[in-house]
Amino acid sequence: MGRSLLGSPRPDTRETQVVQQARAVATRRAIVEAASAEFIEHGFAGASIADIAARAGVTKGSMYFHFKSKDLLAQAVIERQREANAELQSRFAGTDLSALAVLVSMVRVLGELMRQDVVVLAAMRLAVEVPSGDDRGPTYDAWGAPTREVIVQAVAQGDLRETVDPDVLSRFLVAAFTGLQTASFASSRLVDLPERLREMWGLLLPGIVAPGREHLIPDVLLRS
Amino acid sequence: MGRSLLGSPRPDTRETQVVQQARAVATRRAIVEAASAEFIEHGFAGASIADIAARAGVTKGSMYFHFKSKDLLAQAVIERQREANAELQSRFAGTDLSALAVLVSMVRVLGELMRQDVVVLAAMRLAVEVPSGDDRGPTYDAWGAPTREVIVQAVAQGDLRETVDPDVLSRFLVAAFTGLQTASFASSRLVDLPERLREMWGLLLPGIVAPGREHLIPDVLLRS
Repeated sequence: MGRSLLGSPRPDTRETQVVQQARAVATRRAIVEAASAEFIEHGFAGASIADIAARAGVTKGSMYFHFKSKDLLAQAVIERQREANAELQSRFAGTDLSALAVLVSMVRVLGELMRQDVVVLAAMRLAVEVPSGDDRGPTYDAWGAPTREVIVQAVAQGDLRETVDPDVLSRFLVAAFTGLQTASFASSRLVDLPERLREMWGLLLPGIVAPGREHLIPDVLLRS
Repeated sequence: MGRSLLGSPRPDTRETQVVQQARAVATRRAIVEAASAEFIEHGFAGASIADIAARAGVTKGSMYFHFKSKDLLAQAVIERQREANAELQSRFAGTDLSALAVLVSMVRVLGELMRQDVVVLAAMRLAVEVPSGDDRGPTYDAWGAPTREVIVQAVAQGDLRETVDPDVLSRFLVAAFTGLQTASFASSRLVDLPERLREMWGLLLPGIVAPGREHLIPDVLLRS
């Protein structure tokens, strides 16, 4: 392509490489987004490679070049979720908010991400589907670890009770969030998720906030 | 069958009818259990009628006689879940336990049922899968209504705070349970579900039990 009209093809020029690479990245992204939409609509088992290719507007050959199997597509979706988690953490890294405020805000932003980014939403849907022989446990761990870290800080800052076990609370939050988004997806396609998250914090905070720090609850709830 | 050796066939005798009916019930049950196992392993979308028939050991004809579609099989599974819910409620109907103790016990027993009854487990798995155009919202309502009723009683008995909104708490418990069983299924095929439920109550109860009734928490936790 490129110079072919002017003489012999020069596929190895730097310019051509850059264009090709950008095109490959765009195609790959289109495929991952199409796969996400298909996973959300039909589940992992119900999604077909052919439908994903059709939705992305790519040929079978291009599809096979980028992703050799549906499993690899699911991995790419879950990888995007990991990136979103990392972005989410770095977003709150330099903040002067209390760890408790960060905890509540992070959960809210995760809910927002699910509503905005079809790939993040698909990762969540994949996490609640457990096909045989495929352990999605690591997905839960990926959410649990950063949550745990913030909880440890909130206990150290004296905002959460000393009796709160960071392992227990982080594990519970991840599972409860999974359930809330699942129920909210079923009832309203996530429209009511923010309200459901706020209700969760309203029930949880009085039991986990340290004695003497109850006055923080109204402000923290505003961040939920 | 039956009297055919003694003269003309008399398929309408009462005895034959009873035998045929019992056989039909047994076949139907075998199919629903096979469908449950397939739904658990492959999800609704991934399960095939042919595999379900093979697992149940029935012919295609018999399968078609009992269930004309995969949707009808899913409905039968969800129906069994409704029956299990009703049994669960009646089990605690004549009890002299406090409503708070019943609430915590019911959630525990629901977890036990999921571990013991493949059809109840399949209903739960179906509830977290939301294929397009199919709203599983009603499934959540089926769990929410009885839960709500017990919460109303626990508030009336003064064990739960007056500020606890039964709609909010029941909705949250159903969603949290959904998430806990999903995560527990992914990590341990439900082996750790009882421990996860106990942890949930340990986090929740201090914030929802009425002031002055905190002494009830250890006993209630023993029922979780």
